[in-house]
Amino acid sequence: MHLNNLPSYCTALLSLKAESSLSFSEIANTIGKPEVWTTALFFGQAKADQSTAESLLDALGSKRDNKEISYQAEEDGSSKTLSRDFIIKGLIGEGMGGMIERGGTWEFPPKDPVLYRLYEVLVVYGWSYKALIHEKFGDGIMSAIGFRTSLEKKKDETGDRVVITLDGKFLPYSQTDQWDMSLSK
Amino acid sequence: MHLNNLPSYCTALLSLKAESSLSFSEIANTIGKPEVWTTALFFGQAKADQSTAESLLDALGSKRDNKEISYQAEEDGSSKTLSRDFIIKGLIGEGMGGMIERGGTWEFPPKDPVLYRLYEVLVVYGWSYKALIHEKFGDGIMSAIGFRTSLEKKKDETGDRVVITLDGKFLPYSQTDQWDMSLSK
Amino acid sequence: MHLNNLPSYCTALLSLKAESSLSFSEIANTIGKPEVWTTALFFGQAKADQSTAESLLDALGSKRDNKEISYQAEEDGSSKTLSRDFIIKGLIGEGMGGMIERGGTWEFPPKDPVLYRLYEVLVVYGWSYKALIHEKFGDGIMSAIGFRTSLEKKKDETGDRVVITLDGKFLPYSQTDQWDMSLSK
Amino acid sequence: MHLNNLPSYCTALLSLKAESSLSFSEIANTIGKPEVWTTALFFGQAKADQSTAESLLDALGSKRDNKEISYQAEEDGSSKTLSRDFIIKGLIGEGMGGMIERGGTWEFPPKDPVLYRLYEVLVVYGWSYKALIHEKFGDGIMSAIGFRTSLEKKKDETGDRVVITLDGKFLPYSQTDQWDMSLSK
Amino acid sequence: MHLNNLPSYCTALLSLKAESSLSFSEIANTIGKPEVWTTALFFGQAKADQSTAESLLDALGSKRDNKEISYQAEEDGSSKTLSRDFIIKGLIGEGMGGMIERGGTWEFPPKDPVLYRLYEVLVVYGWSYKALIHEKFGDGIMSAIGFRTSLEKKKDETGDRVVITLDGKFLPYSQTDQWDMSLSK
Amino acid sequence: MHLNNLPSYCTALLSLKAESSLSFSEIANTIGKPEVWTTALFFGQAKADQSTAESLLDALGSKRDNKEISYQAEEDGSSKTLSRDFIIKGLIGEGMGGMIERGGTWEFPPKDPVLYRLYEVLVVYGWSYKALIHEKFGDGIMSAIGFRTSLEKKKDETGDRVVITLDGKFLPYSQTDQWDMSLSK
Amino acid sequence: MHLNNLPSYCTALLSLKAESSLSFSEIANTIGKPEVWTTALFFGQAKADQSTAESLLDALGSKRDNKEISYQAEEDGSSKTLSRDFIIKGLIGEGMGGMIERGGTWEFPPKDPVLYRLYEVLVVYGWSYKALIHEKFGDGIMSAIGFRTSLEKKKDETGDRVVITLDGKFLPYSQTDQWDMSLSK
Amino acid sequence: MHLNNLPSYCTALLSLKAESSLSFSEIANTIGKPEVWTTALFFGQAKADQSTAESLLDALGSKRDNKEISYQAEEDGSSKTLSRDFIIKGLIGEGMGGMIERGGTWEFPPKDPVLYRLYEVLVVYGWSYKALIHEKFGDGIMSAIGFRTSLEKKKDETGDRVVITLDGKFLPYSQTDQWDMSLSK
Amino acid sequence: MHLNNLPSYCTALLSLKAESSLSFSEIANTIGKPEVWTTALFFGQAKADQSTAESLLDALGSKRDNKEISYQAEEDGSSKTLSRDFIIKGLIGEGMGGMIERGGTWEFPPKDPVLYRLYEVLVVYGWSYKALIHEKFGDGIMSAIGFRTSLEKKKDETGDRVVITLDGKFLPYSQTDQWDMSLSK
Amino acid sequence: MHLNNLPSYCTALLSLKAESSLSFSEIANTIGKPEVWTTALFFGQAKADQSTAESLLDALGSKRDNKEISYQAEEDGSSKTLSRDFIIKGLIGEGMGGMIERGGTWEFPPKDPVLYRLYEVLVVYGWSYKALIHEKFGDGIMSAIGFRTSLEKKKDETGDRVVITLDGKFLPYSQTDQWDMSLSK
Repeated sequence: MHLNNLPSYCTALLSLKAESSLSFSEIANTIGKPEVWTTALFFGQAKADQSTAESLLDALGSKRDNKEISYQAEEDGSSKTLSRDFIIKGLIGEGMGGMIERGGTWEFPPKDPVLYRLYEVLVVYGWSYKALIHEKFGDGIMSAIGFRTSLEKKKDETGDRVVITLDGKFLPYSQTDQWDMSLSK
Repeated sequence: MHLNNLPSYCTALLSLKAESSLSFSEIANTIGKPEVWTTALFFGQAKADQSTAESLLDALGSKRDNKEISYQAEEDGSSKTLSRDFIIKGLIGEGMGGMIERGGTWEFPPKDPVLYRLYEVLVVYGWSYKALIHEKFGDGIMSAIGFRTSLEKKKDETGDRVVITLDGKFLPYSQTDQWDMSLSK
Repeated sequence: MHLNNLPSYCTALLSLKAESSLSFSEIANTIGKPEVWTTALFFGQAKADQSTAESLLDALGSKRDNKEISYQAEEDGSSKTLSRDFIIKGLIGEGMGGMIERGGTWEFPPKDPVLYRLYEVLVVYGWSYKALIHEKFGDGIMSAIGFRTSLEKKKDETGDRVVITLDGKFLPYSQTDQWDMSLSK
Repeated sequence: MHLNNLPSYCTALLSLKAESSLSFSEIANTIGKPEVWTTALFFGQAKADQSTAESLLDALGSKRDNKEISYQAEEDGSSKTLSRDFIIKGLIGEGMGGMIERGGTWEFPPKDPVLYRLYEVLVVYGWSYKALIHEKFGDGIMSAIGFRTSLEKKKDETGDRVVITLDGKFLPYSQTDQWDMSLSK
Repeated sequence: MHLNNLPSYCTALLSLKAESSLSFSEIANTIGKPEVWTTALFFGQAKADQSTAESLLDALGSKRDNKEISYQAEEDGSSKTLSRDFIIKGLIGEGMGGMIERGGTWEFPPKDPVLYRLYEVLVVYGWSYKALIHEKFGDGIMSAIGFRTSLEKKKDETGDRVVITLDGKFLPYSQTDQWDMSLSK
Repeated sequence: MHLNNLPSYCTALLSLKAESSLSFSEIANTIGKPEVWTTALFFGQAKADQSTAESLLDALGSKRDNKEISYQAEEDGSSKTLSRDFIIKGLIGEGMGGMIERGGTWEFPPKDPVLYRLYEVLVVYGWSYKALIHEKFGDGIMSAIGFRTSLEKKKDETGDRVVITLDGKFLPYSQTDQWDMSLSK
Repeated sequence: MHLNNLPSYCTALLSLKAESSLSFSEIANTIGKPEVWTTALFFGQAKADQSTAESLLDALGSKRDNKEISYQAEEDGSSKTLSRDFIIKGLIGEGMGGMIERGGTWEFPPKDPVLYRLYEVLVVYGWSYKALIHEKFGDGIMSAIGFRTSLEKKKDETGDRVVITLDGKFLPYSQTDQWDMSLSK
Repeated sequence: MHLNNLPSYCTALLSLKAESSLSFSEIANTIGKPEVWTTALFFGQAKADQSTAESLLDALGSKRDNKEISYQAEEDGSSKTLSRDFIIKGLIGEGMGGMIERGGTWEFPPKDPVLYRLYEVLVVYGWSYKALIHEKFGDGIMSAIGFRTSLEKKKDETGDRVVITLDGKFLPYSQTDQWDMSLSK
Repeated sequence: MHLNNLPSYCTALLSLKAESSLSFSEIANTIGKPEVWTTALFFGQAKADQSTAESLLDALGSKRDNKEISYQAEEDGSSKTLSRDFIIKGLIGEGMGGMIERGGTWEFPPKDPVLYRLYEVLVVYGWSYKALIHEKFGDGIMSAIGFRTSLEKKKDETGDRVVITLDGKFLPYSQTDQWDMSLSK
Repeated sequence: MHLNNLPSYCTALLSLKAESSLSFSEIANTIGKPEVWTTALFFGQAKADQSTAESLLDALGSKRDNKEISYQAEEDGSSKTLSRDFIIKGLIGEGMGGMIERGGTWEFPPKDPVLYRLYEVLVVYGWSYKALIHEKFGDGIMSAIGFRTSLEKKKDETGDRVVITLDGKFLPYSQTDQWDMSLSK
């Protein structure tokens, strides 16, 4: 399972969440943060600041004076313990190597059907998106960094629909008058 | 170039579009069809019906009694000719093999930066989307077939933004009471 | 071995089944569920509800007040223990990450001869299936989600035969009149 | 497009079929052969005998004294010609190299959504099929050679369904008393 | 090392064999089974019946009332123990998942020179074998299931020679009159 | 050769350059553009505006009333001809598909030794760069879009040195207060 | 199709053979050469001497004063012509690059079912062969160069059998007393 | 996470650094070494001499008479201990195998967005760099061995910029008069 | 065949060589250049100067006033023509893109047995070479640029031997006192 | 790190060597064996006889009555112990599986720069070596089995040079008169 590639602080967070019976949405509301972004924290794909990290643990019901957090390890069901401090450091990007490493749980092409369908959207419509970005904006990209995203449930009489919004800043390729290399020195 | 993998009727359509100086948006408006879907026709990723195919060629300025359509081949700049009928058959999925083959121009992972950023969104947020679909809808997927999508330009004081909406029907895994195999016979 | 990639609750289930000397078919009958689906539970590829999960453990002979379930670990023959609750949570998709991850034991192309033959059927007949789906149904897919399947043994005078039935709902690509993006907002 | 990998006699057959407006089903009926098998002939995945090959061309409306068969090449819309004899030889496996090469148009994993769904069935249920074959039959495989298959459309009030039947002979691994190597000499 | 991928019962068997100083040939003789097949048992690629499994352990010098079998683990030289019953279950295909998984130690293309040379024979002569099978037998395959094989040492004045015999049943593709799908129901 | 993947207008430009005996540096000077950027035009990796495209052809010695430009094709030494207009359209990103496709000539990992050394710098120092970006700037990336670069020759008594400067804007991941999805609608 | 990768002289040979209606066996007999080796000539995997090459063309019915040999090209059915001398040079390894390149038509893993079964024999029994070679011969390999092979049809009451014999010289790794590097100078 | 592939002495160093709250820049200053090079020590990509290794541990606040260094293991938060001597040996390339193995944490193509952007620079500009090296220096490479590099933060009114300098010695391919092989003996 | 990837000037050179019946050794002698280097010219892997390129064509028997050079194309036996000037430009690295692209005909891992054995030497002894370079020279590499190589035939009573000598300059990783980045500006 | 793939007896040997401060050259001298071959023993790529294995441990300073050999594990610095007998068995190829598995630490293409340069020599000169072997010896290979090799340091006024000699027996493909298959029976 690719979730086995998660850093240990993430596994602990997911375990705490399971015990709390809270949804990502409820947690996001409690800590006052966007839903996908909050979810991404649990998968090691976003970086919190110190106070958000603390709030997140609070929201998950972990007492602040509870220095050791136990969770059940998936691979063998044994009980494991991480210090609260260790989890905080993971969340704020001061864990392993002192930084967040993104993308570690992604496999290409993905085999899980939910992930595959997201991927297939690009397989089929990727070039169309590129053509429309080119035509509407010019020579450049949709930033995946200056980026926000949401996933919502829309009621529909033919069945509920998943609506994912990708909203990234358009970044044009540098104009040549911005290539003054003397500024690089 | 991966665009070299396009079926010839697509290359001809893109060539006609270039000559017409029309945008995908204008063409979509003229034929009264969604923008991304219309764009996807040019990349062989959607299937038109006969009347839409005719309207598309009309919109591109190709006269109906013009049985032969010329375009300049990208690979060597030579002039090529396709019959109008051949292009129509491509658009309605009655060309090579009598059906549309989707995905043929996609390379994984993509090397073009515009395509890569779209892909990176999944690398980083894919598992979060899966987790949220699971939590909000249950065990199932966002359909990439019962699906619609748009790409829009949003003005923003910090710079224009690309907003892509993915809207697919949620499909739950069949409940076991739907597994009556006697119905399969 | 790819079975080494199974989540621990699956390894425990397979171990319990071995001790019980029950067949998948008998177990499926006992819990009143389809055979392939029941088998898929043991490989982490289907999600049970709470009561089915309980019934499954009952069927495997695990007493409800038996809170700890032992099994012999394949990799080194040591005895391992999982809590009954942990196994239940795995079965109902509330284990690792709070959701089922499908596909994790599949390798492509498969090396095991049984798996390879199933795969070879697609290598040889895949395009023919696509062509027939196209011709009989139109532009769309056989759903692997709205799906049921069985595997049966047919007596035949020239030797027993394996009969696998794949039965999925046909999903047509969205018609363009279903692309009203205002409904996505 | 992977259909570009088809041998030329297949492209010609598909082109003739398109002109004839016949379905695979009608053609199969006319020549009195199974539907999937007949379809597989068009994709170079089955081998006909001489009389079936002749009947197929007859069914497609090609006159026997018509020694040259024209079709429109997909890649550039030009008109190409193959001799009737050349097509016949392709069908009966006496073309390139004097034998049928199967599998040439398959890409793994497949990118076309129709093909992918078929493949995903294996990704998800492959190990379950293997486990059930093992349990019901013993140590062996479902033959993909001693094999027959069909694809049917089933009406269903929740929507049409695609029903694919895979029916292969069970082949047990040779018992050791069949390993008399002196018979090999 | 790919031998690290062996199931634990195989590692134990190889360890017992090393202690016994017996050759595969001697063991095969003792249990009255073919040599390659007996060897394949040690690599998890064949399935024994109960009595052969017992005989094999007997032949390796393991006493039947010796319920625990120790061996030295390759990865760290530590002493490990498997129950005799656990090894028997592995041999008769009732271990992990209740079935044999073949192919798990093969890597493609192989890097070990002995394995590579075997593979190179196919790289160079594979198509010739296919052509000859086609010509001598017709449209079909050499079965790798209904199969027997041996490896022998031949004295030769220019140096000893390795002679490997592959002997598989020819399986013709099903004739169309065997495609009566009504028999599948 | 990967240069064979270049769009035809690039091959023509490189051919014109060879005939002109001008260096990239001289050409860049003549058209008043950065050197690497100008070079990138010849490899289809940058997009010019109309006037720069015209100036480039001027600089290469192609007369404006010379509507047909001949060059010798690498693959077979034959003479080919592209219209001046066709080359201009390639340069301004209105050729095949109406946009620039970047990355098409890159192979990973590269086999050419010059390309490989550039790549090896990342293999060895990539994580160090990431760690330093993280530490000096925070959680974000060096943009490859808002980017400029140069390659210079530095005299050194121990031998000439290649000095490549990569200068990209730092892009921080969006702060959560920038995730107001209502702005996406 | 991988046969498309054959050198042109091989395609011509296969075409001549098809016209001659001779089997590989008959041709091998006529030229007095081993059957697999003769077949390998047609697939560019063996090198003939001048007189064998001449005999082969004689056997195929090509007159010696017939300087131009026509064959029908598989890819488009057109008629092509090679000089007799060109074919001879291909056969004796003085064609492209002045040497035979082996292995060019092999794909790994192979998709054609006939080739795949041969490969699967190695997937399943490869390590057993290695173990037996090690035990019977010592530390070394079966040569694929000092090698001979045959493929025969054996009648068997349970059905015809394909018997392939691989017979290669055992090559031991050099003993250290053969490592006198002064002999290398 | 690819950082999991780091040798244990590197994990310990990164852990010590985290505890020390020192930046790579401060550490580099303290030990008087270049910044990227110092950073590379922490990722196992550079080799220190004995005195630098000692200084580095000093700088990180590890007392010289502190023979055992504890750090918290990322994978499970447990406390681990390495001897000071063991870390020193890792740094001076006398650890595992007695040498530094470079490149072990690099994955291609990289999935982390920071690493990917660095890589994309080559995807887009790689051939341009090669062309300019060729033109300015001749037939040869930029050495990645005789190499130095820096990463700096440049203030810019449009936002901070990352400036990476790659500075490698140009190495020309050996002239043929340097091919006197008698000197090799 | 990978030789099909050769630039056209190389195919022409190999064709001229075949007609001349000269060996690489004789040609190398005639032009007074090293043997492997001369051979590498024919495979597009080395760059000649103008006078060597002229001498090479002289040596191959092509008259200087013979402006057009014909050769027989391998793929279809047709006659092709390249100008002498075009071949010269290829040899001196002023052909396609104005530079030599090395490595284009290499496939990894190689399938041709001769190439594979060379590769296997690295598979088996690669780490030993690295360890010895480390021990004898320190932290650095054997240059493949400042490099010379030969291949010789040694008579030996047990059979002829191939002796390949690789002789490359040792390049140490830059000492940190060579990392003065101010010199890069 | 790929050295992590070494069998445990190799890790122990490398650890003993590090403690002994002996070079591979000194060890090779002491045991009277070739240097590369002796080095290859440490990487599991060669097989010793019993007496050489004993001598090697002697040379490394391990007393014969010292039955347990401790070494520090690289992955976590813990102390591990292997029996002397276990190491001897590894060296003489009677460890895991009773045979040496070669190639297990090789990755393709290699990422370590030292290994890569060795590999690049083949990427660039591989076809030239093949062409010269063909021309000087005929149709066959340089054996990597009947093989010896050395790596030496040559002083040179322009810098030390690494000289690697590959010396393998030429093996011609079997002549057809050696294909008497009756000898295989």
